[in-house]
Amino acid sequence: MRISNIARQMEAVGVLGPARFGKAVRILREMFSNDDYSNFISLAGPIIPGGLRNVITDLVDEKLLDGIVTTGANVTHDMIEALGHRHLVGSETLDDSKLRQRGLSRIYDLLVRQKAIEDLEKATHRMLSRIPESKRRNIATYELLWEFGKQLPDRQSLLHTAQRRSIPIFCPGIFDSMLGLNLWTYSQLNPLLINPFKDFSKLVDMTYNARKVGVVILGGGMPKHHVLIASSYRGGVDAAIQITLDRPDGGGASGAPLEEAISWGKIKGHQMLATVLGDATVMFPLLTLAALERE
Amino acid sequence: MRISNIARQMEAVGVLGPARFGKAVRILREMFSNDDYSNFISLAGPIIPGGLRNVITDLVDEKLLDGIVTTGANVTHDMIEALGHRHLVGSETLDDSKLRQRGLSRIYDLLVRQKAIEDLEKATHRMLSRIPESKRRNIATYELLWEFGKQLPDRQSLLHTAQRRSIPIFCPGIFDSMLGLNLWTYSQLNPLLINPFKDFSKLVDMTYNARKVGVVILGGGMPKHHVLIASSYRGGVDAAIQITLDRPDGGGASGAPLEEAISWGKIKGHQMLATVLGDATVMFPLLTLAALERE
Amino acid sequence: MRISNIARQMEAVGVLGPARFGKAVRILREMFSNDDYSNFISLAGPIIPGGLRNVITDLVDEKLLDGIVTTGANVTHDMIEALGHRHLVGSETLDDSKLRQRGLSRIYDLLVRQKAIEDLEKATHRMLSRIPESKRRNIATYELLWEFGKQLPDRQSLLHTAQRRSIPIFCPGIFDSMLGLNLWTYSQLNPLLINPFKDFSKLVDMTYNARKVGVVILGGGMPKHHVLIASSYRGGVDAAIQITLDRPDGGGASGAPLEEAISWGKIKGHQMLATVLGDATVMFPLLTLAALERE
Amino acid sequence: MRISNIARQMEAVGVLGPARFGKAVRILREMFSNDDYSNFISLAGPIIPGGLRNVITDLVDEKLLDGIVTTGANVTHDMIEALGHRHLVGSETLDDSKLRQRGLSRIYDLLVRQKAIEDLEKATHRMLSRIPESKRRNIATYELLWEFGKQLPDRQSLLHTAQRRSIPIFCPGIFDSMLGLNLWTYSQLNPLLINPFKDFSKLVDMTYNARKVGVVILGGGMPKHHVLIASSYRGGVDAAIQITLDRPDGGGASGAPLEEAISWGKIKGHQMLATVLGDATVMFPLLTLAALERE
Repeated sequence: MRISNIARQMEAVGVLGPARFGKAVRILREMFSNDDYSNFISLAGPIIPGGLRNVITDLVDEKLLDGIVTTGANVTHDMIEALGHRHLVGSETLDDSKLRQRGLSRIYDLLVRQKAIEDLEKATHRMLSRIPESKRRNIATYELLWEFGKQLPDRQSLLHTAQRRSIPIFCPGIFDSMLGLNLWTYSQLNPLLINPFKDFSKLVDMTYNARKVGVVILGGGMPKHHVLIASSYRGGVDAAIQITLDRPDGGGASGAPLEEAISWGKIKGHQMLATVLGDATVMFPLLTLAALERE
Repeated sequence: MRISNIARQMEAVGVLGPARFGKAVRILREMFSNDDYSNFISLAGPIIPGGLRNVITDLVDEKLLDGIVTTGANVTHDMIEALGHRHLVGSETLDDSKLRQRGLSRIYDLLVRQKAIEDLEKATHRMLSRIPESKRRNIATYELLWEFGKQLPDRQSLLHTAQRRSIPIFCPGIFDSMLGLNLWTYSQLNPLLINPFKDFSKLVDMTYNARKVGVVILGGGMPKHHVLIASSYRGGVDAAIQITLDRPDGGGASGAPLEEAISWGKIKGHQMLATVLGDATVMFPLLTLAALERE
Repeated sequence: MRISNIARQMEAVGVLGPARFGKAVRILREMFSNDDYSNFISLAGPIIPGGLRNVITDLVDEKLLDGIVTTGANVTHDMIEALGHRHLVGSETLDDSKLRQRGLSRIYDLLVRQKAIEDLEKATHRMLSRIPESKRRNIATYELLWEFGKQLPDRQSLLHTAQRRSIPIFCPGIFDSMLGLNLWTYSQLNPLLINPFKDFSKLVDMTYNARKVGVVILGGGMPKHHVLIASSYRGGVDAAIQITLDRPDGGGASGAPLEEAISWGKIKGHQMLATVLGDATVMFPLLTLAALERE
Repeated sequence: MRISNIARQMEAVGVLGPARFGKAVRILREMFSNDDYSNFISLAGPIIPGGLRNVITDLVDEKLLDGIVTTGANVTHDMIEALGHRHLVGSETLDDSKLRQRGLSRIYDLLVRQKAIEDLEKATHRMLSRIPESKRRNIATYELLWEFGKQLPDRQSLLHTAQRRSIPIFCPGIFDSMLGLNLWTYSQLNPLLINPFKDFSKLVDMTYNARKVGVVILGGGMPKHHVLIASSYRGGVDAAIQITLDRPDGGGASGAPLEEAISWGKIKGHQMLATVLGDATVMFPLLTLAALERE
């Protein structure tokens, strides 16, 4: 018995969580195996520090993903690891005032050394200085992250691999992150202007010209919505799966069912949709394993 | 790459959801492979109608489980299926007044025919009449469910298999279920007295005499707490995993972290505990697959 | 501006959480002011230790509630407080092994002294011995709790006040609690048999004979479902509000929307239903304040 | 009995939800009454369409708020209402394909006419054209929203009132919204460049120069984090309350406890922090009512 068998049995249950899991595997298999699909993934929450760095880098390297939309935090963590830092295993019950004194910052049970944040600032400023000033005066986030990826020769880095494979990483909320602070401090003394309109034009072009668009949504937030809204110009995406712990009945976009997006013209129809209720850092590797298993 | 490899990699991440999933697989593997363990499972939420009937029946048949604690609803659904009824695939957006008129009852996106409920009542009364009156006057729920299991010759039935394997099914909330209504209507005209103290004595004996006690908690509710409280007489259980979507910060027992139970003397220590945040009907088959894979 | 004005404005918003809150206030006002209603409340989660002891005792004392269905844990806490013990303010980050050594048990950020649990056992055994043996040999939980209430002369005690006002407290899961352990230990040496069928007959009678039945559901679990299922013999309840943090899409009964119960014949129709998403220990006092304010 | 009395009683409970609610009222009272405080509010989720438009506009008008950070969606909805459109009351069970055909878009149980979205595009382009081109070539989001507010003479509009009171509205994710699409389409044919660095400089200046900084966080997302990260240059904010339904144990920023931010230097200490578990569209008006009641 393998996980792909389990997934098929689950879809046969037809109801509740198992049906949604089984359907998500089937959709993901279609997205990965049908060359008509241009596939996008959105990353929100602790995706990179939560252990999915290798999983996503591998998918980019194998050209199973065509574009990424992410929070600034996930880019920040990829860069920190590319600079040689590792997170520490902590606990959610540690005293945050004491951690502060000891130079440690906390994300649930994960710790980051303040030293890593400081190294990131230096490295960011150094890498920015190597970008030609003319480019720096009007740069998209995906262009900026390609520049960083080129300068971070870590084979396991998502930024590096995406640059090597010419896969754009869009970061519409880049300003709201540790990396964003570094961009802002640099901009106070040096020419730097990030132009998110260029990002959006690129994303609209990519989705508009794709034969089919598939989206994998890990967590909610701004990344979730971004490929969907850009796809409204093409009449919506063709396939979408989301993995989320956010609830629908608060009315926020993060927990909203994918079906809602049909009424906004961002998704084409009900057939190729599945919401998996769960933790993306656990469920996405399992869905991927099942979707890539030979049947 | 197999799911047991993924689970080991997840445990190596050391933080967040992956660490908890990986650790849960390791604990479950120990519970299933170490003969010192007497293993209990608690079932709350739509475990049987959600497709786990075969999974749990197989574990009982292979003697990997030694006792079950369940809500009345899961027993009700096992019996309905043993009587030949199947659930229907519906949707969570159906109109419940119309369903009522059409003789259908809903659990999220799953439908049950009213006819199945009526057949259950007849079958329950018939099976009760076949139990000797002396036994009926003071019967534990596990004894009652063995009697039913004997009379329901469906190899896929949890009740039937548990009876065949002499595994007790405890149902402390049996009164609060469709089956419970049938017991009550029967008791209005016939001698029937269910004695939950007999159940508890049996459960305390089983846990007290076990070399080690392991618990798998699917969902919360009364079943979650029951093996833990019975184990307080032996100083707590040795290993426990729970799969839940309930949150801890409301303070309810269903979402409570397992660690709390240490302070009540119901769990021995921190080493063999893992909470998996997710939907039990999806996660338990995956955890089981990983835990039983040959390494 | 008073909270009842806010509630009316919220209902006028017509959508999302505010509409549900405003509607719940209106339903509760109707239940409290229309003499046709027999009102039941179900208590699950840390309702008594979470500060609602006075709120519910006052409603019982003013005869605004006609019946209560509760977990064993809430009865346990009411008795502990009636014996003069108080909970301590702790924190959710305390070390549970150390708490155990110090004789403290934890519920999220609340601590209970082990001494209180020991005193409860002695008091329970003493109070049981004062109940005539003939009565003890076949007693409903509501009769048992009236006996305890009579012997616990604390005006703020829910058990005491309910006994004084002849309001039954049903406790279908009494066995699964610290109090339940004490009943079981007593039963090992003394005659004691609790008969839940008697409870259910009383509850069915009460709901069957009521002109209208209203239900307030705090938290989920077994108590949530109990008044609803008992009301199926009268064609369902007339009005219901629930306050819950449990989510609907896992399929469990605790998080299920009230609408589902219509398809089971446990609620009459869509008009008088409202689900408030939130923490019952916070929302119920606020809803009650708004519902009882003179308009 | 008034809600401020209830809040004080809740804080006296000392544990669980009531303690957090009571403490949040006390912190909010301090923020609103102590002139040393510069107060910021972050808006994520359906805050404006969920009925809080008047509440927040009133607080801005009374100068109890000094700055706002919001998602693009909330600005979009404020503008739609300022143009005379109203949302419709729908249901979460409507068929989204049919809604699409009928020109309606859905947010849980709320409907927006497609016509409103089209009017917004025309109005946005018209208002943009009235902004001097030199300004348009390098404009912060708070400057842009002041320009719109000036041109939208609706006394109940948050944009209009904020402009009239010179309160900046920061919108770091403006691109990811219907309004953002309109900005992008305009920019394809006309000079327009939005410079988020200018926003961040303004926000850092405001927080750096404040004697004390207080933050009210409604929902999570990018707005939640923004005032906190900008305040890291002053050593963190002095007081913060958050209202959220997102859970902490997934590790995402939206559900993270405020305590984590201490370890990042974004909050000063443990004293003036409170997380209220609940729906912001319900809880914020209630907290505000309690905090502004005369004691």
